[in-house]
Amino acid sequence: MATTQSSFTVDQSHFKVFEPTSTPDRLLLGPGPSNADPQVLQALSLSPVGHLDPFYVGLMSEVQELLRYCWQTDNRLTIPMSGTGSAAMEATLANVVEPQDTVLIGIKGYFGHRLADMASRYRANVETIEKEWGQVFSLDEIEAALNKYQPKVFALVHAETSTGVCQPMEGIGELCRKHNCLLLLDTVTSLGGVPLFLDKWKVDLAYSCSQKGLSCPPGLGPFTMNKRAEEKMNSRSEKVPNWYLDVSLLNKYWGSDRVYHHTAPVNMNFALREALRILSQEGLDKSWQRHRSNAERLWKGLNSLNLELHVDEEYRLPTLTTVRIPSGIDSKAFIIHLLNNYGIEIGGGLGSLAGKVWRIGLMGYNSRKENVDKILNIFETELDNFKK
Amino acid sequence: MATTQSSFTVDQSHFKVFEPTSTPDRLLLGPGPSNADPQVLQALSLSPVGHLDPFYVGLMSEVQELLRYCWQTDNRLTIPMSGTGSAAMEATLANVVEPQDTVLIGIKGYFGHRLADMASRYRANVETIEKEWGQVFSLDEIEAALNKYQPKVFALVHAETSTGVCQPMEGIGELCRKHNCLLLLDTVTSLGGVPLFLDKWKVDLAYSCSQKGLSCPPGLGPFTMNKRAEEKMNSRSEKVPNWYLDVSLLNKYWGSDRVYHHTAPVNMNFALREALRILSQEGLDKSWQRHRSNAERLWKGLNSLNLELHVDEEYRLPTLTTVRIPSGIDSKAFIIHLLNNYGIEIGGGLGSLAGKVWRIGLMGYNSRKENVDKILNIFETELDNFKK
Repeated sequence: MATTQSSFTVDQSHFKVFEPTSTPDRLLLGPGPSNADPQVLQALSLSPVGHLDPFYVGLMSEVQELLRYCWQTDNRLTIPMSGTGSAAMEATLANVVEPQDTVLIGIKGYFGHRLADMASRYRANVETIEKEWGQVFSLDEIEAALNKYQPKVFALVHAETSTGVCQPMEGIGELCRKHNCLLLLDTVTSLGGVPLFLDKWKVDLAYSCSQKGLSCPPGLGPFTMNKRAEEKMNSRSEKVPNWYLDVSLLNKYWGSDRVYHHTAPVNMNFALREALRILSQEGLDKSWQRHRSNAERLWKGLNSLNLELHVDEEYRLPTLTTVRIPSGIDSKAFIIHLLNNYGIEIGGGLGSLAGKVWRIGLMGYNSRKENVDKILNIFETELDNFKK
Repeated sequence: MATTQSSFTVDQSHFKVFEPTSTPDRLLLGPGPSNADPQVLQALSLSPVGHLDPFYVGLMSEVQELLRYCWQTDNRLTIPMSGTGSAAMEATLANVVEPQDTVLIGIKGYFGHRLADMASRYRANVETIEKEWGQVFSLDEIEAALNKYQPKVFALVHAETSTGVCQPMEGIGELCRKHNCLLLLDTVTSLGGVPLFLDKWKVDLAYSCSQKGLSCPPGLGPFTMNKRAEEKMNSRSEKVPNWYLDVSLLNKYWGSDRVYHHTAPVNMNFALREALRILSQEGLDKSWQRHRSNAERLWKGLNSLNLELHVDEEYRLPTLTTVRIPSGIDSKAFIIHLLNNYGIEIGGGLGSLAGKVWRIGLMGYNSRKENVDKILNIFETELDNFKK
């Protein structure tokens, strides 16, 4: 008998009959995922092509160029990692950090802690500076820490999804150059929705996600590194300790060699191309303005309902707003009510803000006036029903 | 001015106008990706839901149970990794290998070499046994190597996509238990298409991909580990040196805790659920038989055209057939002709089989009589036009 003929009988103990796949209607106004543009979902469902098909190779270059525009960078090594934003996050560290390198992390929310955890797995000497959740770092604080720790890499979150804070970026890149350190930036909740100038800010490594500001489903992790970061990677004494995210290998597939690395998630890349194309057609300026004006409409509406916003207006993210939960309100019951009765998702707080804030996202396709008015109307008419 | 208002002007140097995303029609009869079932593409394009939405949490459990059926395993830790098959491959090693552990790899094709490269990045003491590309390992060869190297992990490829060989599995699991070593199996080109009995074969860790036999686009990497493998993972002295693929963290999201790890690629999971559902409705036995009878039709047809198959019939994979390129034929020109004139993709050889074989895949949705007849007809009528 051939080895590929069945030698045992099939066990039916895990066999179950399931209905065809369908999903409930959801308006995703939480910290992510956000809804995708219907045209993006259309592109996602196109029939796959080979990952070395000349058509696909052309599409890869288009995705790279679109990402460069949206991130405002000339970086050659600008590619979507074949995983979610967290994979791209890990890729930034995995490729440049060598054991015992000092990596300084600015922690002012959940994702700063994640960066610290990841860096430790690459055997970095991890140092941290911390701010309360809802605050930003000043240039003086950053300079003092660079002086004290002399890190090889300084990692910072631009838009903290856990707090709703946008870190002012001007001047930080110059400080990092002065201290001969790489600047690594999380742009997960800013790409597409908030002004972002990677090259002008002298950012050396950055990552993001395919959802949120890009209006594509989650599943890809845009990644970029400049020449300074490449030099650090190329001077490694050992291989990158992560095969899947090894940019020196990925570069041979995404670069002119087109050497097979892994079978690309082709459909997700169709969708990402379409999402980036739609964003670039709108124009970055216009998208940023749209996010800002819809967020201001939300902030004004919440204020007029006597709800407090957690972050000072100066540092407030247009893509994600943290609203303080009024005392005496059953915040979890309200979240469940929104989901079950309106199909609307908003988020609760994470970490030190758990039970203290709701998180309302207005990102990409979802950043529109009618969504703002819908959620404000529900807060106005229903919140009082959730007094404990 | 608020930090989220634009301080620079947008540079238009990477701005380009692109057409809406569309793809050429392709019949993917290469080593992968293969075409997806249209119902799976429909599921893929459903509107996203939150990754902690009760609906999605239910869907996750369904995907797990469907995977258990298709892999014929009771393993609790059976989950799709949020990356392609290569990510799941890396996950099997990353979670159980500790520095200086001896990992023995059976190399009989391209993907064995990849396993060795990956294991080395986790600082394993990598030992290998090798066979020519197109051959399988005997039980005696495996036992001798287990005796010699006393490995903690023995990794093997069940279905070698680079050679078209299916490794006989019976008896190997027992040998690994006897030598107190974990058995790690690559089932990328076998899951869904070839008899596979993980638990009966005493396989401790396995991985696969979402495409090929499952008829879903590439983008997820099914992963499974049993209690023996869990014990090895739980006895680690340090954290898993890969955050994204750390099963001890992923287990808190996929297990009953449902603790946020990363934003799941929800749409790919809709598609995978639908693909696994369709496969389970057909029934594993029937799917295996369908793959086998279509492959036999292909083999018979190729033989009658006097084309030689690279692998002995006893060890030949139904999902992927390696055909020796007749002398004097311009094999690359033939591949390009198939793509440009028929929209059909077949593969060339990799590694030591480069320029020596074509690779024809009949996997999942594509394993059907009409595809066999179409490709045979083209070989019959057109191959002679490609004499050099």
